[in-house]
Amino acid sequence: MIESLVLSIDGMGGDNAPDIVVEGINVAAGRRNDVRYLIHGDVARINALLDRYPAAKAVSQVIAAEKVITMEVKASQALRQGKGSSLWNAVQAVEEGRANAVVSAGNTGAFMAISLFRFRAMEGVHRPALTTRWPSIKGGYTVLLDVGANVEADSEQLVEFAIMGAAFARAVSGIAKPSVGLLNVGAEEQKGHEEIRAAAALIRAAGFDMDFRGFVEGDDIAKGTVDVVVTDGFTGNIALKTGEGTARLVAHYLREALTGGWMAKLGALIAYPALRKLRARMDPGTFNGAVFLGLNGLAVKSHGSANGHGFAAAIDVATLLARSHYRAEIATNLTRLAAAEASNAAAAPAGEAS
Amino acid sequence: MIESLVLSIDGMGGDNAPDIVVEGINVAAGRRNDVRYLIHGDVARINALLDRYPAAKAVSQVIAAEKVITMEVKASQALRQGKGSSLWNAVQAVEEGRANAVVSAGNTGAFMAISLFRFRAMEGVHRPALTTRWPSIKGGYTVLLDVGANVEADSEQLVEFAIMGAAFARAVSGIAKPSVGLLNVGAEEQKGHEEIRAAAALIRAAGFDMDFRGFVEGDDIAKGTVDVVVTDGFTGNIALKTGEGTARLVAHYLREALTGGWMAKLGALIAYPALRKLRARMDPGTFNGAVFLGLNGLAVKSHGSANGHGFAAAIDVATLLARSHYRAEIATNLTRLAAAEASNAAAAPAGEAS
Repeated sequence: MIESLVLSIDGMGGDNAPDIVVEGINVAAGRRNDVRYLIHGDVARINALLDRYPAAKAVSQVIAAEKVITMEVKASQALRQGKGSSLWNAVQAVEEGRANAVVSAGNTGAFMAISLFRFRAMEGVHRPALTTRWPSIKGGYTVLLDVGANVEADSEQLVEFAIMGAAFARAVSGIAKPSVGLLNVGAEEQKGHEEIRAAAALIRAAGFDMDFRGFVEGDDIAKGTVDVVVTDGFTGNIALKTGEGTARLVAHYLREALTGGWMAKLGALIAYPALRKLRARMDPGTFNGAVFLGLNGLAVKSHGSANGHGFAAAIDVATLLARSHYRAEIATNLTRLAAAEASNAAAAPAGEAS
Repeated sequence: MIESLVLSIDGMGGDNAPDIVVEGINVAAGRRNDVRYLIHGDVARINALLDRYPAAKAVSQVIAAEKVITMEVKASQALRQGKGSSLWNAVQAVEEGRANAVVSAGNTGAFMAISLFRFRAMEGVHRPALTTRWPSIKGGYTVLLDVGANVEADSEQLVEFAIMGAAFARAVSGIAKPSVGLLNVGAEEQKGHEEIRAAAALIRAAGFDMDFRGFVEGDDIAKGTVDVVVTDGFTGNIALKTGEGTARLVAHYLREALTGGWMAKLGALIAYPALRKLRARMDPGTFNGAVFLGLNGLAVKSHGSANGHGFAAAIDVATLLARSHYRAEIATNLTRLAAAEASNAAAAPAGEAS
């Protein structure tokens, strides 16, 4: 694509904003020069940073926003009082067509609430879902959704998540026909909740443009058994955080092992370049960038504690999705879903067991 | 306690039975000499192994069982056709008072079904729960339940799990007043499902003998924020397997890092004793032994792929629980729960919002 892309950036969101935001734009600008940035926030502070990052300065425009939504603010409060904040204005720029996507490292609940309120859900999407990536042994990433936008999901919503996750994998990982699995407690057909079994049947009936593999289990996320793992926001959030906690536990064990005695320390010193590479590989920044999928606008959430490198990864996700046709694909598959449901309803009249 | 404990062992369950079973008994027998073992299974094969493990031989008696329930057998099938198998007979020995607990590394579904059928649930327990441990950064273990006995749990069942988990922590980890948390998507009062919030209110009202800390998140399992993490079997199973998958992912990364180039290999060689200790620490065998809690009999499940060292850890869990008063404690707290529910019902008559 030739046309220039514009990303709307919440300059003040996140633990170390605006510093890591400008640093992240600088990293991203070094990778490609056809994206421009509208940075919303404290003009003086952001301009002072841009003076230190010439690559970012060349492609950025700073827009004043007098307010900041901090991490403690509740979503409902952000909706009532957030107008004029850097986050609100960053979302609004996309809504008004001045930018193609918004990226923020700020308050997740506030970001989701404002995005949903301003962009609205796509037609046919009951519940937008927070979508993220998790590294896999195969070397790439597993797409996981929902990781916390909703605490429950019925079968139809799970099918919508599958559609959205497949579109994400196609856009971000470049997989032509993503493989998709429903997270369950066993791979057998008869396992799990009613809702999950009904979702599997619906996906099979609808004939989506994806390689549906049925049920997968928790360890399949890191194994990379499928490209996309679909679950409700309660289970997905807990799975993600359990994985994060375990990665930190193992890193802690490793640190303890390699600092316990002079032989271990010497070995670690000699293996230092390899261990540094391992650390970079385990850095959550490399797969940063969660997307609130299913809206009429593109909203990408960076981890609040991301560094510049991590924020650049979130910008990459926004760029790839903004340049793809993910929304058109989702719409096409939602039409197929509606058709499958209509034919289901015709085949099994109300009151009869399906 | 002076009296001798008797453990009933499924000699044929697990990927490497009966070898690892006898090896495990041998390891356990080296730790304490006041436990005797009834080993059910193929007499000739088990006796041949006992000849190689004198410590095990001194404390074991072999009882013939002509059948084996393999890993592929469904729970319903095991119930119909399992009579006379090593697993069935091992459970029956406890039911008939010939042993204090049963340990098996065999088919989990079959073991749970046969245990529930023969032992029956304790009075007041709606659903027994599979209870396991996960290593924590604090150095000990976090008790986690339910990890897969049921796919759903209402508020009352979650409260029962909390009671059972606290009793487990007291017996196995020796904690006088275990801290307990309910697994949720956020620590705030208003987060999560209706059922979880109701469970929290019920635990607070009932005044159990535990240190209830409200909601915890997925990463708190490995952090060791609380001694016991309570959740439904669907979420618990997925959290556990996601954690296992992540631990394997990081181990894979570490292996790749330390074999990539001669410097890394040299460093790893020098740090080898430390890395071997790390490996032992990450070995799931060290925290092996899941308990199917809430029954009138004690059933301990070893991982199917456990080695002798892992099977001995499961024997340790069985020994500690069998020597504790965990069932009496559960019964006492269930009585408190019933009283709290009765006073709840009296305070909020039907039809009125509580």
